[in-house]
Amino acid sequence: MAKTSKATWIWFPGDFEIWLGNRFNNRRTERGAMFPPFWKQDSHWVTVEFSKTVTAEKPETINIKAEGDFNFMLDGKLQFGMPSSFVIPKGEHKLNFKVHNQSTPPALYVAGETINTDSTWLATYEDKIWIDENGVAHGSGIYVPAAKWKFDCPDTPPSGYSLERKEIMPVAVEKSAAGGMLYDFGRETFGYIKLKDVQGKGTLYIYYGESREEAQDKEYCETLDRIDADCDKETIIIKNSKAFRFVYIETEDGISFKEVAADFEYSPYKENKSGSFRCNDELINKIWDIGAYTMDLTTREFFVDGIKRDRWTWSGDAIQSYLMNYYLRFDTDCVRRTIRQLRGKDPVTAHINTIMDYTFYWFKSVHDYYTYTADIDFVREIYPRMQTMMQYVLCRTNSEGMAEGQSDDWIFVDWVNFPMHKRGTLCFEQILLCKSLETMKLCATILKDNPLQTPPQGSITVEEYTADVEKYTALEVSLQKKLKTTFWDDKHKAFMHAIEDGEMNTQITKFPNMFAIIYGYLTEEEKQTVMKSVMLNPDIESITTPYMRFYELEALCLMGMQQQVLKEIRNYWGGMIKEGATSFWEKYNPEETGTQHLAMYGRPYGKSLCHAWGASPIYLLGKYYLGVQPTKAGYEEFEIRPVLGDLEWMEGDVPTPYGKIHVKMDKNRISINSDGGKGTLIIGGHRYEIPCRKEVIIEF
Amino acid sequence: MAKTSKATWIWFPGDFEIWLGNRFNNRRTERGAMFPPFWKQDSHWVTVEFSKTVTAEKPETINIKAEGDFNFMLDGKLQFGMPSSFVIPKGEHKLNFKVHNQSTPPALYVAGETINTDSTWLATYEDKIWIDENGVAHGSGIYVPAAKWKFDCPDTPPSGYSLERKEIMPVAVEKSAAGGMLYDFGRETFGYIKLKDVQGKGTLYIYYGESREEAQDKEYCETLDRIDADCDKETIIIKNSKAFRFVYIETEDGISFKEVAADFEYSPYKENKSGSFRCNDELINKIWDIGAYTMDLTTREFFVDGIKRDRWTWSGDAIQSYLMNYYLRFDTDCVRRTIRQLRGKDPVTAHINTIMDYTFYWFKSVHDYYTYTADIDFVREIYPRMQTMMQYVLCRTNSEGMAEGQSDDWIFVDWVNFPMHKRGTLCFEQILLCKSLETMKLCATILKDNPLQTPPQGSITVEEYTADVEKYTALEVSLQKKLKTTFWDDKHKAFMHAIEDGEMNTQITKFPNMFAIIYGYLTEEEKQTVMKSVMLNPDIESITTPYMRFYELEALCLMGMQQQVLKEIRNYWGGMIKEGATSFWEKYNPEETGTQHLAMYGRPYGKSLCHAWGASPIYLLGKYYLGVQPTKAGYEEFEIRPVLGDLEWMEGDVPTPYGKIHVKMDKNRISINSDGGKGTLIIGGHRYEIPCRKEVIIEF
Repeated sequence: MAKTSKATWIWFPGDFEIWLGNRFNNRRTERGAMFPPFWKQDSHWVTVEFSKTVTAEKPETINIKAEGDFNFMLDGKLQFGMPSSFVIPKGEHKLNFKVHNQSTPPALYVAGETINTDSTWLATYEDKIWIDENGVAHGSGIYVPAAKWKFDCPDTPPSGYSLERKEIMPVAVEKSAAGGMLYDFGRETFGYIKLKDVQGKGTLYIYYGESREEAQDKEYCETLDRIDADCDKETIIIKNSKAFRFVYIETEDGISFKEVAADFEYSPYKENKSGSFRCNDELINKIWDIGAYTMDLTTREFFVDGIKRDRWTWSGDAIQSYLMNYYLRFDTDCVRRTIRQLRGKDPVTAHINTIMDYTFYWFKSVHDYYTYTADIDFVREIYPRMQTMMQYVLCRTNSEGMAEGQSDDWIFVDWVNFPMHKRGTLCFEQILLCKSLETMKLCATILKDNPLQTPPQGSITVEEYTADVEKYTALEVSLQKKLKTTFWDDKHKAFMHAIEDGEMNTQITKFPNMFAIIYGYLTEEEKQTVMKSVMLNPDIESITTPYMRFYELEALCLMGMQQQVLKEIRNYWGGMIKEGATSFWEKYNPEETGTQHLAMYGRPYGKSLCHAWGASPIYLLGKYYLGVQPTKAGYEEFEIRPVLGDLEWMEGDVPTPYGKIHVKMDKNRISINSDGGKGTLIIGGHRYEIPCRKEVIIEF
Repeated sequence: MAKTSKATWIWFPGDFEIWLGNRFNNRRTERGAMFPPFWKQDSHWVTVEFSKTVTAEKPETINIKAEGDFNFMLDGKLQFGMPSSFVIPKGEHKLNFKVHNQSTPPALYVAGETINTDSTWLATYEDKIWIDENGVAHGSGIYVPAAKWKFDCPDTPPSGYSLERKEIMPVAVEKSAAGGMLYDFGRETFGYIKLKDVQGKGTLYIYYGESREEAQDKEYCETLDRIDADCDKETIIIKNSKAFRFVYIETEDGISFKEVAADFEYSPYKENKSGSFRCNDELINKIWDIGAYTMDLTTREFFVDGIKRDRWTWSGDAIQSYLMNYYLRFDTDCVRRTIRQLRGKDPVTAHINTIMDYTFYWFKSVHDYYTYTADIDFVREIYPRMQTMMQYVLCRTNSEGMAEGQSDDWIFVDWVNFPMHKRGTLCFEQILLCKSLETMKLCATILKDNPLQTPPQGSITVEEYTADVEKYTALEVSLQKKLKTTFWDDKHKAFMHAIEDGEMNTQITKFPNMFAIIYGYLTEEEKQTVMKSVMLNPDIESITTPYMRFYELEALCLMGMQQQVLKEIRNYWGGMIKEGATSFWEKYNPEETGTQHLAMYGRPYGKSLCHAWGASPIYLLGKYYLGVQPTKAGYEEFEIRPVLGDLEWMEGDVPTPYGKIHVKMDKNRISINSDGGKGTLIIGGHRYEIPCRKEVIIEF
């Protein structure tokens, strides 16, 4: 009997994410109004062909399900109608299914004894049949392996996908002076408010708040619902999910309800495959826990920026979520989904999220993903969309080959509290572009070195990958040289800000300098210099968003300053906890007080109090304290360089494709246990090999 | 009170056609199996923003309907929920609506006293909001006038569009020897078979035939239905429309029906705005009538090739339909719909319908449309998609700037009965490319010369149009020169076929030579020479498809051979009528007999017996006998060069944007009546001005 995998639903790669992304990104509301993104949204292909050549050792019945109308061709002959089952005769046969669906991605599920849909099937959205001078039909379309995920039952098609839900209850209820009731769910949460035993006819007003103040501020709370009901002891579940800790509800006369609950909506994960961290400092432990909770709330259909607002996928936020996630849940499915969704389809008409820096982070995120997972198939899948994205970038560079913001580009860098121009040629953007070119080179190299044995028709050839390696190497080398010759200020020992209207803008900020440290564009000596001249220089403006603190603290860790970074973490993240945070915020300024912490964008509750980029200690503690990181893709090889900083002891897990790496350390002793991969412990100038699934104990 | 037009549904230009095209092209079936196209199908934009700045002279209530979820922003402020009505305060206000719909095109209907959705509203699928260093929001998207059509009622949204239907009955019924019943609808028709008073439980088998033979051949008829029914005197209407003259029905024991009818489906037209033709020759009149009927059957949501098969939009077929249509129904809506649908969206990944020649016809069809309608707005709308289509073409030209078929291009030219290679650089394709470059030049010139007073943000500038004029003029001039130097054979006085593998393929066919005549790439003297050396040379292989006969006979008419062409029409189209045709065929070979006429593509009933390209006498009789054609766009100026050929008399109408031009002529006298435009009658070396709405009679 031929070997076979289990049947699963298949579709054209990227279609599911693009479609789901449309549902997801169009679900944001602001004070009851829908709030769609302002960038182009694509759609799945509406007609997709799936095919495979199969060998049946005996006549085999296949059961067929499709999302959409479909046809079925056996050995080139169309079969009647849309059969729900079919007997494949003994022998080798070519199976072709075409599925058409305008509303949701065309998907196919075929299950037999040995013939089952899976990623060995090919998919195309354009078979490009043509007929030559001899009347012979040719197909010259581009075929790719079909996409699949976890939809393994005929009755769980991809379009039915949703996160999981469980009921939660408020921990406190109080009558408000204004007449309504205020419900406190104890901590930041996300889901669907549920009113039980609703009785009577009238309108229910529901106001959500990440803070008590927001929920009770009917005029300015960011999200709300108004329900006209006519019920006889029924349960009302609000259709659109919200982020909240507090919910304030007012009812018209004539309508009442007995109880408030919520359906908490979440992306499930496995505790025993997750990262962990514990140490002697309970504040650090609390920071880790709240960071993990923040990440869990923002890990949804995609990695989202914040759960109250924007609830959109943003590439700059996402790359940080990916990195934290590699040290928390290792949810690589969500990484792939988000990368696909952010990229969308061709043609490229704008930077990702309209932001130039976000395009560059997107490139980097693909290679990061490969580093942590060794998933070549995904790199191969996404590479053509990397090519067209990079074409867009390169078409818009100036005569120096540098990326400048054009009139329709958003140059973001960071939200800053000090004057900083974003026009002209920013050094920061060139450093990111340089890394993007390197990413193209690295991905092309991986694909060149790992060719498919039987590449599907229309695949990129090894020659084309090789040409890309050469092209992007040359561009990267050239740009890296220019970084120094153009932006380096030898007097101040720092990268300057930008060329603006032909003049050097000599402002010095941490942004390009810290990325030059992280991305390795400085020698060891230069790095030390930049630490003094910029990173630790009190005259340089400080960073106030957790977003850029992520990179700032990473740069400090890379320079061996784990002790100082711990202090920063205690102050900054500890500061939010002191203010009552149950999840980490979009922005935190220790100098603000009271409701000042809630405001942003000129709105009293504009700030998101559960923002993924607030959770960076998860990443820092895993990578620079437990000290674990892959040195060969997917942890085939890895290093452990543990650093206690000022801690007495620490213990934790880092998830890997093999399982986990457990590290436990105090000032005298370290023990390591790894589920797989070739590990090396590097400590005190010594290197120790880490065997698989056997505890190693080193005493100092 | 501000002037205002009637409220109408609006959407993003092209979206309706792309969406409708998907429904349309995926509706084809072959023996009960769906048969989608093998080219890429795009989708409408799923989120579209509509906006307008309005001035209300007093508070004005608007009623709002949308296809999809929507939000509404008044002066930049989002309003609660999805209001069905709203009071716009007095004064100037900015209205923005965002509509999201995955399944059907986002569309909006706003109706007030003066504030109404129409094409003065702007639409964008990507508003590209970004926030500058001062926190100010910018939008840099590309805005275009919103599209509209005839959906003027709130309850008739675009997604509800369908053609009209009326019941028709068979003209004869007979019991077949095989046991079933054969119904004859008297002539070729199209619609939904309807079984009345169905009683009992069982299966009904319905076999369709354009011929009696096909309907009765259960094994090989091209379309069929199988209905499992359980009815108590109910009417069953078959869901999927079919083409047929004959229907053969078998029923299982236990189920019966009383009567067979059909819902004829058609695109309505106005008789009093249509073309007409009558002459002393009844055969020619019959040919005109059957041609008109063929055109009416193939004029549907789009101009379709044939109604049995493929029921797809094909660009090479469509351009002929457009031209016939300008002389029959002047249904310019259907022309625009088809042009938009064929082009789809970016990125261009293949030639239109995968066929290189079909891309070139598509370009030409835009300029033809302008010539007959003077509709600059449409040229402006489609021009960006012409640019990207031409980019695709030019990216694939060889070092000589010539278009060669690449491995995934279909080079069609024609179905021929003789050996003809389609590899290499075909002269025919270069002639079409040259015309496409000229079309780009002409359209850019029109747009350059007719700038909008207030072009929406992101519009193509006059400078860009001017640059395009220069670019395409240069390319056209260069290629036109090369046509002669490369392909002209001075010995045989003809264009040779192709360069193949670096060698000249010296075959001479009518294809490039007749297009060189029609497109004006020959001097008068050369044309006369080519007539002898190619067009009337019996050694040159003859053309057997009505498709290329269209151009062949046009070339002959252009050379003044109307008398001979009439003979050809009588033989060829008269020949089909003698064979019993009630509509004109995909192909006709007078040397075949009996059921040979039904076969094609190796299938006994593969041939379409109602094929648009079969109706070309409609075009020829209007343009080269009545002799009417516009000489300035949209009949602002036109010529009448009537030619009787061998007719005694003729009389007919040619539709124009102004109404009609009526021509009546015999050997002694001509009378003309025109509804508008500056007309010139050219006859016997004389020129006569034609006044508007006043009969002119010239006697010889």
